[in-house]
Amino acid sequence: MEDEKKFEKLEPIRVKALDDILGVPFKVLDDGFVRVVDYLGSDESIVQAARVSYGKGTKQISQDRGLIRYLLRHRHTTPFEMCEIKLHIRIPMDAWRQWIRHRTANVNEYSTRYSLAIESAQTTNPDQWRMQSSDNKQGSSGFFDLEQGQKMSDDEKFLHEKAREIYDNRVAQGVAREQARKDLPLSTYTEAYWKIDLHNLLHFLELRMEKNAQLEIREYANVIGREIVKRWAPIAWEAFEEYALKSKEFSGFELELLSLLANSKGDEAKIKAGEFGWLKYKEEKLTFNMERWEFENKMKDLKIEIPW
Amino acid sequence: MEDEKKFEKLEPIRVKALDDILGVPFKVLDDGFVRVVDYLGSDESIVQAARVSYGKGTKQISQDRGLIRYLLRHRHTTPFEMCEIKLHIRIPMDAWRQWIRHRTANVNEYSTRYSLAIESAQTTNPDQWRMQSSDNKQGSSGFFDLEQGQKMSDDEKFLHEKAREIYDNRVAQGVAREQARKDLPLSTYTEAYWKIDLHNLLHFLELRMEKNAQLEIREYANVIGREIVKRWAPIAWEAFEEYALKSKEFSGFELELLSLLANSKGDEAKIKAGEFGWLKYKEEKLTFNMERWEFENKMKDLKIEIPW
Amino acid sequence: MEDEKKFEKLEPIRVKALDDILGVPFKVLDDGFVRVVDYLGSDESIVQAARVSYGKGTKQISQDRGLIRYLLRHRHTTPFEMCEIKLHIRIPMDAWRQWIRHRTANVNEYSTRYSLAIESAQTTNPDQWRMQSSDNKQGSSGFFDLEQGQKMSDDEKFLHEKAREIYDNRVAQGVAREQARKDLPLSTYTEAYWKIDLHNLLHFLELRMEKNAQLEIREYANVIGREIVKRWAPIAWEAFEEYALKSKEFSGFELELLSLLANSKGDEAKIKAGEFGWLKYKEEKLTFNMERWEFENKMKDLKIEIPW
Amino acid sequence: MEDEKKFEKLEPIRVKALDDILGVPFKVLDDGFVRVVDYLGSDESIVQAARVSYGKGTKQISQDRGLIRYLLRHRHTTPFEMCEIKLHIRIPMDAWRQWIRHRTANVNEYSTRYSLAIESAQTTNPDQWRMQSSDNKQGSSGFFDLEQGQKMSDDEKFLHEKAREIYDNRVAQGVAREQARKDLPLSTYTEAYWKIDLHNLLHFLELRMEKNAQLEIREYANVIGREIVKRWAPIAWEAFEEYALKSKEFSGFELELLSLLANSKGDEAKIKAGEFGWLKYKEEKLTFNMERWEFENKMKDLKIEIPW
Repeated sequence: MEDEKKFEKLEPIRVKALDDILGVPFKVLDDGFVRVVDYLGSDESIVQAARVSYGKGTKQISQDRGLIRYLLRHRHTTPFEMCEIKLHIRIPMDAWRQWIRHRTANVNEYSTRYSLAIESAQTTNPDQWRMQSSDNKQGSSGFFDLEQGQKMSDDEKFLHEKAREIYDNRVAQGVAREQARKDLPLSTYTEAYWKIDLHNLLHFLELRMEKNAQLEIREYANVIGREIVKRWAPIAWEAFEEYALKSKEFSGFELELLSLLANSKGDEAKIKAGEFGWLKYKEEKLTFNMERWEFENKMKDLKIEIPW
Repeated sequence: MEDEKKFEKLEPIRVKALDDILGVPFKVLDDGFVRVVDYLGSDESIVQAARVSYGKGTKQISQDRGLIRYLLRHRHTTPFEMCEIKLHIRIPMDAWRQWIRHRTANVNEYSTRYSLAIESAQTTNPDQWRMQSSDNKQGSSGFFDLEQGQKMSDDEKFLHEKAREIYDNRVAQGVAREQARKDLPLSTYTEAYWKIDLHNLLHFLELRMEKNAQLEIREYANVIGREIVKRWAPIAWEAFEEYALKSKEFSGFELELLSLLANSKGDEAKIKAGEFGWLKYKEEKLTFNMERWEFENKMKDLKIEIPW
Repeated sequence: MEDEKKFEKLEPIRVKALDDILGVPFKVLDDGFVRVVDYLGSDESIVQAARVSYGKGTKQISQDRGLIRYLLRHRHTTPFEMCEIKLHIRIPMDAWRQWIRHRTANVNEYSTRYSLAIESAQTTNPDQWRMQSSDNKQGSSGFFDLEQGQKMSDDEKFLHEKAREIYDNRVAQGVAREQARKDLPLSTYTEAYWKIDLHNLLHFLELRMEKNAQLEIREYANVIGREIVKRWAPIAWEAFEEYALKSKEFSGFELELLSLLANSKGDEAKIKAGEFGWLKYKEEKLTFNMERWEFENKMKDLKIEIPW
Repeated sequence: MEDEKKFEKLEPIRVKALDDILGVPFKVLDDGFVRVVDYLGSDESIVQAARVSYGKGTKQISQDRGLIRYLLRHRHTTPFEMCEIKLHIRIPMDAWRQWIRHRTANVNEYSTRYSLAIESAQTTNPDQWRMQSSDNKQGSSGFFDLEQGQKMSDDEKFLHEKAREIYDNRVAQGVAREQARKDLPLSTYTEAYWKIDLHNLLHFLELRMEKNAQLEIREYANVIGREIVKRWAPIAWEAFEEYALKSKEFSGFELELLSLLANSKGDEAKIKAGEFGWLKYKEEKLTFNMERWEFENKMKDLKIEIPW
């Protein structure tokens, strides 16, 4: 606790690496960007906040890096909330629809009731059309060939032009902007100021940098993580990569099996798996079981053999 | 406080007027709806919660109606948070974009990554095209004549069909649903479960039933207020109409002027208004001042004459 | 919208008046304080955020001051959320219990599980003992005389010493800190970092600077408002004083009566008031009615006579 | 999506096992309790909400149990937010101080400004005095012997009586309740209505059922989990036990080492651990490293031997 020392005047905490790019847009997608408008705090502020909680006792936890890693690993989230960042984002409305579902941020979005809609929509190059994933109902995998892609890009261009023409017509005739916009494509760009604390930002990044996140929002998340947070709070970022991005969770069942497999007790593991209901057969073939399938994937990554 | 009486088993609080319409859709716009899925609490729960706060002392505040009105009037919001409602909503994405900005609710929205987009977009009848308001940059006022309207409705129909055709084509060819949807018009319908407590719902209604709110969302807000909340918590609703919908706020300046005007001291009021900087002239004409203009409107409603 | 101009590198927004007092404690109560640790944004940021929402159209709303006042008056709260401040607070746990009920802030509190409890509790001078208010069940009014006060202060001192002695004993014997603290008085000081955006801070201040707020928390609120926010965002502060602190709200009923009274129609007003149920008599005396009583107080402030 | 079928009237979802105990207090600590006041939703509602998100596609994910487990395992939290519960709690203020830090709940607490403080404080039996843990700065381990304990319990009793006597004296003399309470011990009981959705409740339980949580709050958490949530949403509860309470997370580093150890490559593992900075020696003894120590504990649980 600091109750004994006299308080001295403080200087604001600034991070040179971030100050150097303040206001500079990082390009995302064909016409989007992210830029840092301002921020509050740094790695140092995380430590400072934790030290208020722990008081004098903290000295023992040793150096800052160890403390930040400890806090992140054990989900002590409040010290990370003591850092705040304000971004200016330009993004297609469709990706923004997902983005805005994160409720713990402050937002000022460009208003198409008040002003004319931004004259830009996300376009797709012929080699960028993605195929529906067959094993992930909400994902994509692989691209169309150029010929098919060209045709789709042509249709997209036609639709964008038509939609804009009709929008412009409505506005020219005096239709209220709030109504004129109603048929703009979801791909139309919007802009927003978005302000969030570091804890909630990392949570956003954990969900949106994930390989199952939609490509468009993932590209924004990657830029925010690797270009911005990494400059802003490099120690927290490194800990986040280690303990969030690269980590895996094992359930109670999985830990039991893992222990058996690591000790060469494949037979026992097979019995256990049967007890969990993971090994059901139909005409002598194992039926699909999602929990088992996820476990198998984790074992594959660990190079541990499956006994069934 | 209830610490002295033995607790008896409780029955869940149910409101017959709301149970009677559980699950029944109220139609909104051309193809939208709102229906109540479930709820928790009632007027009675507001009182119950307030009594926990106030303990034994409460008996004096008298009957339930007086207490609820007192709580609402004095912005004692926590007892209203003790009621919760879950709605199923079908709404154009454009209106949903505004709706979702209210962060204090729980949401499950229909996923067009996972499933096919709903085959419906909000259409506009020829007599429903609204003109841009001249004095409200984000509003509308008046309608186009039928001839102009018919042309716009035709264009709208063309665009909807084209956009859907291109969407269906993409899906048929195997484009990932998450990408295929990118050029759907903002008017495309979506659906969601939306759960919120009564305090935050009333706040939502205060903003969205307001005459400057966009027509589309206002229609939803009116249905939720007048068809649902009124059945659910009739005493709270009546208080809300009186103390929120019909109320007006007067600033410090305005109260000073109001006092003078109500006491026939128009001259003094004029001097004061001058001191506030409200009476600037250009070529002998009063220039526009928004604060003064808002005050004048309030005085008009009170039938009090303006001395300048 | 800024989509046409090239973005230039930004400098962080700093406010000299606030930088000048960064880290400097403002004393509150006998042993408490508030000090600014860091902040993000300023009056300028409010305008900047609003301009993102309104895009090019904004130029017309004219200068910054007018815009900020307009935003605050019409409860356009999101631009105010774009400013953030981090305070270091030392406060009795009892007042902190109220403070922490405001959920929209980030908090790191000193941990008495981890470290020894702060050796300080709020003491009361003999002239500071407040009497229970007779007309406000949760307020105080007036002070005890010195003689009575002295006796109470002595008892307080005795209790503080005893409680601390027992706490110190427990700790000395090796009782877990988390249990040793269990009987510390609520008046024991705690410390915290508290971070909040300007909109939510103003909401906090509106509730806690109010004359019915408890004296202890009110003193903190006054310091935060008049010493800190006023330096940080002077235009927003001035608007807040005018439109929040000094404003009054009139309900639908009250507006009807006010209009009649301002137009010398006392008789009609009396009839209306009767219809509202405000004029019930018992043995020829008006019975107490809280809504009427609140209206009467507003009329008194406006120097408008009551006709009943 | 349900957009094709006609909606039928709904019945509210009720859970018999929970209705059976509605209002019945579960005793906690010496004088505390938790009782369910009301609730909204059930296991069935989680599925219902997920099906809105996934639309028609969901049928494939198969039965409800599998879906709920999938949602919980993959942190798809929004369907769990569609269930809400309202509890009435009686708890010492000190434990409530920790409780209230969870911000995503609705709260109405008993007001000691408005009413007299509850005449009860948590007491400690002679065999319940806990010793400070030596390896966990914020924990306890082991109990004092009865002789020492008896002395401490006597001191506690003395302090409680003294504090209450002084409180009662103040109130009797007319001190404002808001001030009279200032020196009540933190162990004084308070009561509150607390309303929260199932997702946030499970998050609360994950943190507060954890072995490092303070004993007092842990007892409340255990009752809420094992007596209430288990009755309310048994499938979600079972999944929560499996995927949250019993699960363990492995960082990127840990996964690398685990893979080597499970494949009998202890030497390589040791080299890697050295590269991570985990194996620093001082006078030929391994120095303490917290990340290594946590890994060792996980390996011990898996019965995997450590090669250093």
